[in-house]
Amino acid sequence: MRYELYYWPTIQGRGEFVRLALEAAGAEYVDVARLPKSKGGGSSSLMGYIDDPDAKRPPFAPPYLKAGKLVISHTAEILQFLGPRLKLISADTANRMWAHQLQLTITDLLVEVHDTHHPIASSLYYHQQKREARRRTLHFIRERAAKYLDYFERVLQSNAKTKGRMLGKAHMIGRALSYVDLSVFQVIAGLRYAFPRTMRHLESDYPGLVKLHDQVAVLPNVSAYLNSKRRIPFNEYGIFRHYPELDRP
Amino acid sequence: MRYELYYWPTIQGRGEFVRLALEAAGAEYVDVARLPKSKGGGSSSLMGYIDDPDAKRPPFAPPYLKAGKLVISHTAEILQFLGPRLKLISADTANRMWAHQLQLTITDLLVEVHDTHHPIASSLYYHQQKREARRRTLHFIRERAAKYLDYFERVLQSNAKTKGRMLGKAHMIGRALSYVDLSVFQVIAGLRYAFPRTMRHLESDYPGLVKLHDQVAVLPNVSAYLNSKRRIPFNEYGIFRHYPELDRP
Repeated sequence: MRYELYYWPTIQGRGEFVRLALEAAGAEYVDVARLPKSKGGGSSSLMGYIDDPDAKRPPFAPPYLKAGKLVISHTAEILQFLGPRLKLISADTANRMWAHQLQLTITDLLVEVHDTHHPIASSLYYHQQKREARRRTLHFIRERAAKYLDYFERVLQSNAKTKGRMLGKAHMIGRALSYVDLSVFQVIAGLRYAFPRTMRHLESDYPGLVKLHDQVAVLPNVSAYLNSKRRIPFNEYGIFRHYPELDRP
Repeated sequence: MRYELYYWPTIQGRGEFVRLALEAAGAEYVDVARLPKSKGGGSSSLMGYIDDPDAKRPPFAPPYLKAGKLVISHTAEILQFLGPRLKLISADTANRMWAHQLQLTITDLLVEVHDTHHPIASSLYYHQQKREARRRTLHFIRERAAKYLDYFERVLQSNAKTKGRMLGKAHMIGRALSYVDLSVFQVIAGLRYAFPRTMRHLESDYPGLVKLHDQVAVLPNVSAYLNSKRRIPFNEYGIFRHYPELDRP
């Protein structure tokens, strides 16, 4: 199966969670909007299907994935679909449902991260809502970041303990790499980029998540991806943005 | 199967989307936190499992549903699970995936509705972020509400047209009642409660959604539920809150 991913071509954003899964699994895929315009790429390629009046089941927004005749939107649902196909989650139903719950919690976290720099409106620039962004981010780094990270660390540690011992390898679910591991990697990488001082302050509380991040980063397929031009660098257009004035002093 | 729903006992909130599905289907369920404390109810019943250090797969937050040995959190995933069991979505995989996409779009809308009155932090009271709430709500009612409603109306109209004719009954998916129909009912009811002047201004653009709302409201099981004490009235603690100063003038 050759997958087609439709997502903004200049940011990691939500699409990055899908890219990481496809890359880690060595899947065959096209990142359509990153093709040259002459080959059907560019941002306009994303909206064609969304705005097509004849599209029977149009996505609300990117990312969406075309897989044969299926068109699937929402990052967490794309990963729910791809997970078993890419062997990034076991076939066990309870495991798959649990993975989806964790991914939906990551989805919620991403909204909160986005809203640190855009607490008023996505249609405004950051500088037009900077005062509100400062106030919102203060709460995010004091209350919310730790609440999410506490939870993910607890899930990871609980998973390690279910077999009665700490593992050599850290995983969110079971004994094998899952798409949730990849997503946690991206969350840690993103938080480090956006809030480096906060993360230096917090990270010692999350040894499991840091270990998982480091393990994912050196997986051969992931490492090759991260060192390629396919990995768009973090920047101030995506979800994780580095505005030093928002970080801890 | 006797389901146990765990959700805040004094608000509709996100749990209401699950309650509506259970009620519409005539399912056997217990709304655990609404039981008297002597029978294991109250808000504290919600946090027991979430905070239990021995819980292997704890939810991040209510709502969550216990179904036999399964514990499922996140409204959209609970509905994805219940849908086929309550005959509130067809067994067809593509239909089920599409229903989940629509429900996840509703999830996104609910965050935006919540953040109209809490744009800075959930840990603060509304009156502590009223200025920011005014500014955020202005964008919500001018830009975002219509964007979501346009999309849902388009999906509904497109579904009506797929069989070449407008229907007697309005449905989001196929020819039968689905949990997405119930959720759209709740969205319309909630927006009307929170922003009555905005909705009076907008509603003529959404004849399909209004029709769907009205049809759902008179379904025998739904109507009985809405007229019972089990339906918690809208109030200023949930997602949809009526603060007249935030609505259109």
